[in-house]
Amino acid sequence: MFYIIGECINTSRKKIKEAVDNKNAAYIQEEVKKQEEAGADFLDVNAGMCIGYEIEAFKWLLDVIQEAVNIPLCLDSPSLDVLEIGYKMAQKPPIINSISLEKNRLEPMLNFLKGKDCKVIGLCMDDAGMPADADDTFQRARRLVEMIEDRGIKRESIFIDPIVQPVSVNTANALSLFEATRKINKELPEVKTVCGLSNISYGLPNRMTVNRVFLSLFMGAGLSAAILDPLDRHIMAVLTTTKMLLGQDEFCAGYIRDSREGKL
Amino acid sequence: MFYIIGECINTSRKKIKEAVDNKNAAYIQEEVKKQEEAGADFLDVNAGMCIGYEIEAFKWLLDVIQEAVNIPLCLDSPSLDVLEIGYKMAQKPPIINSISLEKNRLEPMLNFLKGKDCKVIGLCMDDAGMPADADDTFQRARRLVEMIEDRGIKRESIFIDPIVQPVSVNTANALSLFEATRKINKELPEVKTVCGLSNISYGLPNRMTVNRVFLSLFMGAGLSAAILDPLDRHIMAVLTTTKMLLGQDEFCAGYIRDSREGKL
Repeated sequence: MFYIIGECINTSRKKIKEAVDNKNAAYIQEEVKKQEEAGADFLDVNAGMCIGYEIEAFKWLLDVIQEAVNIPLCLDSPSLDVLEIGYKMAQKPPIINSISLEKNRLEPMLNFLKGKDCKVIGLCMDDAGMPADADDTFQRARRLVEMIEDRGIKRESIFIDPIVQPVSVNTANALSLFEATRKINKELPEVKTVCGLSNISYGLPNRMTVNRVFLSLFMGAGLSAAILDPLDRHIMAVLTTTKMLLGQDEFCAGYIRDSREGKL
Repeated sequence: MFYIIGECINTSRKKIKEAVDNKNAAYIQEEVKKQEEAGADFLDVNAGMCIGYEIEAFKWLLDVIQEAVNIPLCLDSPSLDVLEIGYKMAQKPPIINSISLEKNRLEPMLNFLKGKDCKVIGLCMDDAGMPADADDTFQRARRLVEMIEDRGIKRESIFIDPIVQPVSVNTANALSLFEATRKINKELPEVKTVCGLSNISYGLPNRMTVNRVFLSLFMGAGLSAAILDPLDRHIMAVLTTTKMLLGQDEFCAGYIRDSREGKL
């Protein structure tokens, strides 16, 4: 099972911000229905660009989205107030996006998680910044898992984000991610892994090509989930084909269906 | 380093067969120049469809090809007579394609290899047929390597072909190949691996999509070479991008150059 977290409901997207500001519920509902149909397992919701009114925007979005679709949400905010309201409103146990090892965020987030019925994304980020290599990533993952588990969240509900850094900055960056993921799967087998794709291609031409091949290779290394746009047919074709080749598509049924529907 | 063995000079292709039969040297030379330019490291030569005159056709092809390009050849025939003549004519140490564990081929091929300055493709095929799983593949690979090495061919000159079987027949087939390849790389680190791609997608729609994603995943699992058409821009774009993501393209220079040249 590979999980798709739909990334589209983000106010950093101009059309989403406009829809929020204009209370255009129909537009948002159309968007989330399309994402659900395209195969999103979770919907990321981020109202961070509604500066000064993020809470109101977030509440409105959650009402509107949950009226239209039935899939669980991924509550995406650095603000505990936003997350707390989102958690209360969520009709299904949501993913909390995110906790990291940064000191000013760690303890408040751990307290927030305590006793909650949710999943959580743990970013391998600390006050020194990004991880230096695969082993550093793994050590950070282990610390996050131990602390989060200590607050009552089960290991299988933890999604570790090893943090994607551009391959243009260091040609070993993708390899380090693959190695860290293999180690997490081996040493912490119940724990899941997740990432966004687009940072990998920062600074390069033809970024979409890089993102697609990266997704495939990362799934081959054991990635369990990705935050992506399920309406991007090219990335979804790669995802469907990769799942089949990795033995995650019984009788190749999903691949053959998508092919019949002209999606590949 | 990933090796590309150009597959185009094969008389099972109608145009190649016609060019051979009409002694159209210009056509063949144009083809091989394009393959060299596109990045082929070796050129596979197969005259098997010239039934009754394979030796003459092969000799003519080798003369014509080596007049035009300077890259080493991959001599592709089940006939020891053809391979012997090819080996004598080859201006650079060629790849012998291929030896297998099938009893009627094994000893004659081992005798042929003895003392020769060449590389060789070892097929994990025996009289019982294809390998059953990853471990079976690995055991066959090890037997091949030990016997070939015993005839004086260095391990780094041996390319093991684990034999690609369709994912439509068994959804674990690609996974078994990846596992076998990882084990070969771990237990027999000097030995190389090679495959043809297209069998993987047999029986499925949109075969090219499957072949491309498969190449990428297989390279991620440690494949060292592939027999493919270097003039297929889509497969070459995937190959270039995969090499970059696997840290085999210093400063991403090859990727950026191919992008500038409009190849991605």
